[in-house]
Amino acid sequence: MHAEMTSDFRGIYAILATPFDEHREIDEDSLKSLVDFELGAGVHGITILGILGEVFRLSDAERRLVTRIVVEHVHGRVPVISGTGGSGTDLAIMYSKEAVELGADAVMIAPPRLAKPNDDAIYAYYRELGRELNIPIVVQDEPVTYGVHLSPALLARLAEIDRVEYIKLEDPPTTMKMSQMRKLIGERLRVFGGLGGLYAYEELSRGACGIMTGFSYPEVLVKLYQEFVDRNTHSARELFYRALPIIRYEAQPVVGLAIRKEILRRRGAIKYSRMRDPAAKLDPESLKEIDEIIEGTDIAELLTA
Amino acid sequence: MHAEMTSDFRGIYAILATPFDEHREIDEDSLKSLVDFELGAGVHGITILGILGEVFRLSDAERRLVTRIVVEHVHGRVPVISGTGGSGTDLAIMYSKEAVELGADAVMIAPPRLAKPNDDAIYAYYRELGRELNIPIVVQDEPVTYGVHLSPALLARLAEIDRVEYIKLEDPPTTMKMSQMRKLIGERLRVFGGLGGLYAYEELSRGACGIMTGFSYPEVLVKLYQEFVDRNTHSARELFYRALPIIRYEAQPVVGLAIRKEILRRRGAIKYSRMRDPAAKLDPESLKEIDEIIEGTDIAELLTA
Amino acid sequence: MHAEMTSDFRGIYAILATPFDEHREIDEDSLKSLVDFELGAGVHGITILGILGEVFRLSDAERRLVTRIVVEHVHGRVPVISGTGGSGTDLAIMYSKEAVELGADAVMIAPPRLAKPNDDAIYAYYRELGRELNIPIVVQDEPVTYGVHLSPALLARLAEIDRVEYIKLEDPPTTMKMSQMRKLIGERLRVFGGLGGLYAYEELSRGACGIMTGFSYPEVLVKLYQEFVDRNTHSARELFYRALPIIRYEAQPVVGLAIRKEILRRRGAIKYSRMRDPAAKLDPESLKEIDEIIEGTDIAELLTA
Amino acid sequence: MHAEMTSDFRGIYAILATPFDEHREIDEDSLKSLVDFELGAGVHGITILGILGEVFRLSDAERRLVTRIVVEHVHGRVPVISGTGGSGTDLAIMYSKEAVELGADAVMIAPPRLAKPNDDAIYAYYRELGRELNIPIVVQDEPVTYGVHLSPALLARLAEIDRVEYIKLEDPPTTMKMSQMRKLIGERLRVFGGLGGLYAYEELSRGACGIMTGFSYPEVLVKLYQEFVDRNTHSARELFYRALPIIRYEAQPVVGLAIRKEILRRRGAIKYSRMRDPAAKLDPESLKEIDEIIEGTDIAELLTA
Repeated sequence: MHAEMTSDFRGIYAILATPFDEHREIDEDSLKSLVDFELGAGVHGITILGILGEVFRLSDAERRLVTRIVVEHVHGRVPVISGTGGSGTDLAIMYSKEAVELGADAVMIAPPRLAKPNDDAIYAYYRELGRELNIPIVVQDEPVTYGVHLSPALLARLAEIDRVEYIKLEDPPTTMKMSQMRKLIGERLRVFGGLGGLYAYEELSRGACGIMTGFSYPEVLVKLYQEFVDRNTHSARELFYRALPIIRYEAQPVVGLAIRKEILRRRGAIKYSRMRDPAAKLDPESLKEIDEIIEGTDIAELLTA
Repeated sequence: MHAEMTSDFRGIYAILATPFDEHREIDEDSLKSLVDFELGAGVHGITILGILGEVFRLSDAERRLVTRIVVEHVHGRVPVISGTGGSGTDLAIMYSKEAVELGADAVMIAPPRLAKPNDDAIYAYYRELGRELNIPIVVQDEPVTYGVHLSPALLARLAEIDRVEYIKLEDPPTTMKMSQMRKLIGERLRVFGGLGGLYAYEELSRGACGIMTGFSYPEVLVKLYQEFVDRNTHSARELFYRALPIIRYEAQPVVGLAIRKEILRRRGAIKYSRMRDPAAKLDPESLKEIDEIIEGTDIAELLTA
Repeated sequence: MHAEMTSDFRGIYAILATPFDEHREIDEDSLKSLVDFELGAGVHGITILGILGEVFRLSDAERRLVTRIVVEHVHGRVPVISGTGGSGTDLAIMYSKEAVELGADAVMIAPPRLAKPNDDAIYAYYRELGRELNIPIVVQDEPVTYGVHLSPALLARLAEIDRVEYIKLEDPPTTMKMSQMRKLIGERLRVFGGLGGLYAYEELSRGACGIMTGFSYPEVLVKLYQEFVDRNTHSARELFYRALPIIRYEAQPVVGLAIRKEILRRRGAIKYSRMRDPAAKLDPESLKEIDEIIEGTDIAELLTA
Repeated sequence: MHAEMTSDFRGIYAILATPFDEHREIDEDSLKSLVDFELGAGVHGITILGILGEVFRLSDAERRLVTRIVVEHVHGRVPVISGTGGSGTDLAIMYSKEAVELGADAVMIAPPRLAKPNDDAIYAYYRELGRELNIPIVVQDEPVTYGVHLSPALLARLAEIDRVEYIKLEDPPTTMKMSQMRKLIGERLRVFGGLGGLYAYEELSRGACGIMTGFSYPEVLVKLYQEFVDRNTHSARELFYRALPIIRYEAQPVVGLAIRKEILRRRGAIKYSRMRDPAAKLDPESLKEIDEIIEGTDIAELLTA
């Protein structure tokens, strides 16, 4: 069993999009206003440089830039978790140490891409990271993008490594895997739900310590979480169900991020919705559907209900 | 351009699960009661031997058995579409001819598994099927299970083949692909939505001729479709949003079919919920969640609303 | 640990192609002449209904036909192993029992396709097969076609199941995995090499009990194996190296089987080289290359050397 | 059709491994001695930062370091092609411009990873690169690592883009695809073979302008190419066949690079054979097999033959 938890992350962690300007450069002002937007929504933490942050489209210098700006702008109000995985142990260590130096509170690291499945290689990867780092590690269990499957048994082994304190669970069905993990690892580490919040209610019911995702209405998740903490599961469920039209719409593969950036732009959180290429573009019907769903969902009423 | 449409399928097509008894044999009585259940819900057609029908777990003789029982029991009240794809042209032709002989009204055929992507080979496959068959062909565009990607351009080529009259679209984002296909193929052929109904409202808005799926509350989709036909889009949307908690729950990868069979069992449509192995089993929390979601969704009120 | 071995398979096992006639039907005469060809080459066993046998392109009735003809024609001169995997436990049991009934000496079974990796489900699959069958089971470890990865640890677990007596190893690098398996499973079960013989020398050196493949010059492998048994490793290596141009040529992905059927046709083993569609066709340059390689390799001289 | 070729690359292009020291840092001395080794072998060009160069394990700064050292050390004696693909248009442009600035003669760029197959997005990617760059682009057609399939039709479209002047073909069967491409693109662009040289003879026969690979005995390929140029196809084939034991051994998936680095170390080209983690390690049997194969192949005699 690993040493005691050195951190206490829980609640709603917003995964930040990386805003770009009309020249496809990082839009620093929008990055700051996006932080303000999320903190204004009451999120309990911020995660940067995830898939949603188009991390694979950023140079090493740009990764550092995003980390520096966000850490400075958050200024300790909530924890900042930085995505520092790389396609190899050495890169992951390098990115992680840079994140530590720039003031991140934790790192989120997906398993490395391997020529073929190899649990021992994955274990060795995190063990080496645990040795080199002195901040909490969030293991990112997202097989669709990373192409690596982490079995419950392997995750339980990883939980024994010092510094490995959280799992971000996005291997569906996350409902059943959440329960499996809670049983296997008990209090040794905590598990965040994700998947855009599509199963947020069930994940929290099954023992998630929080939800880490990029949903464009973070205030809904914050309220959902608060209802859970207050044991108002009935209103939590009610709220969750009513937000599903939009949660589900954003959960579409391929275009999910484009939808989120568009909604964030409409909500004034960022200036441009553009992504780095190659990227799916929304069609006119989608832009109209977003209007319709937002109107039909009546978020404002939802939050005051 | 191909010859004129020889069929007029539209509306809600229920994809049937294949019920098994406690000895893992096909439960013929449940198969008939499931047909009754679907027809009672008002569906406009029935599809058998799809992924949901565990077709890959059936012997050739069992495929015939299912087709024979369903065709006989439906007795012409609605069209019956039979899944007759096979891993090769000859098998697909054989299965299709058997389906024709047993009285199926159309066949649904996924592209063949190929050693590497090859649009010309896929085109040749459907062209050969079009030559050999004299009933409508539904092209199944479902890349997750079949591992074959059909580009809009290829689908447009397929639309020129005689007998290819429908696409069952399950390549997400189905919203945007639905619009793309409508533009590319115009009236040459029709497109069904699917994906468990998760984007049924958007798919119908974008020109789908219907929804073909195995949702365990088909009466909800029937009503949704009727509202569309009657141009009551506002109530259609309202109804759809309210059904989302359960639609979404069934849309979970890996366990989706287990959830549906369990709900169908609870609704009295089939006697046992068991699947053929290897199959994911629901955990106790899932069984409880199903209760909760059904209660929280209040389907009864939904249908009379 | 499982019960004692009930069989003693070793040496060169020829995987049979399934010959088709000009109407794409199974060519029974060629199937028999192919058996004669392989027995004439001195192979120690015959395997039917593998990937090379285009098993996925055969109906259930055709599987039975192939098994019946081959078992009858071999008439006990060497063991016959029949490929009886299916996409599910029940189908695999059904195919296997049919094979037993028709007189096969063993069955070769690949792991079932799963919605996601799941070692326990794979173990349960083979355990169930071990319970139901009373002939040896060969576990087919071929991840490219079947999409399932069997780790050395999982294979060692499978080795404990009664009736699981062999692994056919085709998960590259088979060199190192062969040594790993020999260390892990000791004498509990035996391992055949494969991969068209591309690493046959190394596999035998590392402890393979034989090579099971569809190489079109089986007499070369038979001689290679005999040299090994006689501890003439130097001449074994010499022979192997000289056969590599053609072994390597047949090892090409996508077109490997087409090349083999063409060579088997030229050698008079079968009447037609045709495959069931969709299938890659050889281009004129390939037909010329086959000539050139056969001439350049000088097989005749090789065998008398 | 694109503008005229601006370059004239042909012959044997050595893909460089990236040597690391005992601290896993880039071993600059070994990088230079490796260049000397390749030039000493007579190669016609050098390619850096490919899969073999462990490019995915390098930071942006390390990519620049490798480019700078190699360009300086080669000092114009042969062309230097730098791998500058990135997971997005902007990164690929950035890496490419850095390579141009550091003096590379051309760039090699694999297609970007996409959420789903999309030929138009791939075309747009290379068109944008063609606009931004003023040196030749080599399109890397290697689907195994990059997960992107380039159909012959798409490659022919890419051939129309200015600056796209070469394809590095590693989509097997490269034999038939080589002929297909030669027919489709005629003289519009040139095609290099690869795949470790496993089909080098056939690729050259079918019209390849050269072979670009990391084979650890580049002098063999140089001689092979020279025999082709001199139209001594019979001795070319003889030479090729005799080198196959080692070519084939290095062609093993997963461990191929480890084998090459080990042989390069033994040949004195680099100081350490270590790779960056996670990496497959050779077992003792492999180290022994390398000895045996080198001895059995008798390379020295081969080259003077």
